[in-house]
Amino acid sequence: MPHPSYDADVRRVAWMMADAARKVILPYFRGSDLATENKLAGGYDPVTLADRAAEQVMREILAVERPDDAILGEEFGIKTGTSGLTWVLDPIDGTRGFVSGTPTWGVLIALSDADGPFYGIIDQPYIGERFEGGPEGASLAGPLGERALQTLAPRDLTQAIILTTFPEVGMQTDHDGFHAVASKAQLTRYGMDCYAYALLAAGQVDLVIEAGLQAYDIQAPIAVVRAAGGIVTDWRGGPVHDGGRALAAANPEIHAQALAILQKY
Amino acid sequence: MPHPSYDADVRRVAWMMADAARKVILPYFRGSDLATENKLAGGYDPVTLADRAAEQVMREILAVERPDDAILGEEFGIKTGTSGLTWVLDPIDGTRGFVSGTPTWGVLIALSDADGPFYGIIDQPYIGERFEGGPEGASLAGPLGERALQTLAPRDLTQAIILTTFPEVGMQTDHDGFHAVASKAQLTRYGMDCYAYALLAAGQVDLVIEAGLQAYDIQAPIAVVRAAGGIVTDWRGGPVHDGGRALAAANPEIHAQALAILQKY
Repeated sequence: MPHPSYDADVRRVAWMMADAARKVILPYFRGSDLATENKLAGGYDPVTLADRAAEQVMREILAVERPDDAILGEEFGIKTGTSGLTWVLDPIDGTRGFVSGTPTWGVLIALSDADGPFYGIIDQPYIGERFEGGPEGASLAGPLGERALQTLAPRDLTQAIILTTFPEVGMQTDHDGFHAVASKAQLTRYGMDCYAYALLAAGQVDLVIEAGLQAYDIQAPIAVVRAAGGIVTDWRGGPVHDGGRALAAANPEIHAQALAILQKY
Repeated sequence: MPHPSYDADVRRVAWMMADAARKVILPYFRGSDLATENKLAGGYDPVTLADRAAEQVMREILAVERPDDAILGEEFGIKTGTSGLTWVLDPIDGTRGFVSGTPTWGVLIALSDADGPFYGIIDQPYIGERFEGGPEGASLAGPLGERALQTLAPRDLTQAIILTTFPEVGMQTDHDGFHAVASKAQLTRYGMDCYAYALLAAGQVDLVIEAGLQAYDIQAPIAVVRAAGGIVTDWRGGPVHDGGRALAAANPEIHAQALAILQKY
């Protein structure tokens, strides 16, 4: 369906940013000169030079191409704007996966208005995959070519595949809620970061359940999953574009089954 | 170092098999016509048409190119030979990852004599990555080109990254042993299947610890990791090429640190 703030320029600039981020990040991936630092004292949250360099190059593109839009980025915070639109950027979602060499981290780019994201990209530079969703639909451009994305048709939770990033999930209550759903499902897989939402949009899995998210972690996934036919809410059924606990589902039926369990936690 | 049974023909035939397996498998990956079946009644062990078709095509190549060698394959069992060499094949290692759409499954090809594997390939067809190890060294041919593989230099377990497939790992005692090591490490990531060993060989992580393995799951990883400078044993420090519980390490120092814990389990 159309969106009042979406036109071809949104896609042009988003692809320009994703292309630039790929070029900046790839020399650091699996390189021997990877410089990481601890962002949180006492915790393990590696931030790579690639992370900062990629957000910088995306901000430089926006400064030229879309100077009136606001920016919310993981590394460099908020830049205010006048258009009512905000680009929400996570240059490397899944930094732990990145430093481990796994190919399931991604560059997240979303465009939002007051109602949340209406366009998004999940880009995996190493594989060369771009999952995109917006008013014109959802699609994947990857090593096997281009194709439309469509979430799975309903099947019971006992047949469902669930993805998440860590078995710990978040706080203890988040952990308990997640495992209450996972224990009823057919299969649970870990370690996917933003790639989990891409696989949900691609019709490979039924549910993605996470906790402790920031706005920049979830806005691009929301846009891609919705455009492919899915639903993304918090664990109470409300909006999750400001972050928190996410329940992303392939269809309303499986969303309702998972929500009935999660809303007790 | 040289090996009496290794020559250029081994590599030629192994690459021919890996190329053929890629071609057979890829049309099924993320396809809508994926036919799975339950191999174990009551359990969830999906076997795809791709799995069987890929092993079949590899066996056909061996029948023509290396008729005197034995074959041990996941899908079609043992074919005896007269050369004293055995090709050990797992056409899709990580079938759960495959049906979930994750790009961390692989085609495993190894060549063994009575002492175990001395040549191996871990191939990821979707990304287009081939990790190879043998008497001539270890290398990766992938989307960013070709390069030699070298495991990480020693660092303490408290700085180490550990990979495995499931947080459950295996039996309860396997689970306890794994988590006794993981609780001392910097970072643990799940969901990688054979790709974990490829990342160990590539110098991205320090340890891979798994349990419940079959010979065809571990022989190609052993060859690749050893050729890159690493060590692969069971949890007692002995050979693991017949399967069981695997401890794969980047160097002798981190292997000793992990083994000191695991051998209590």
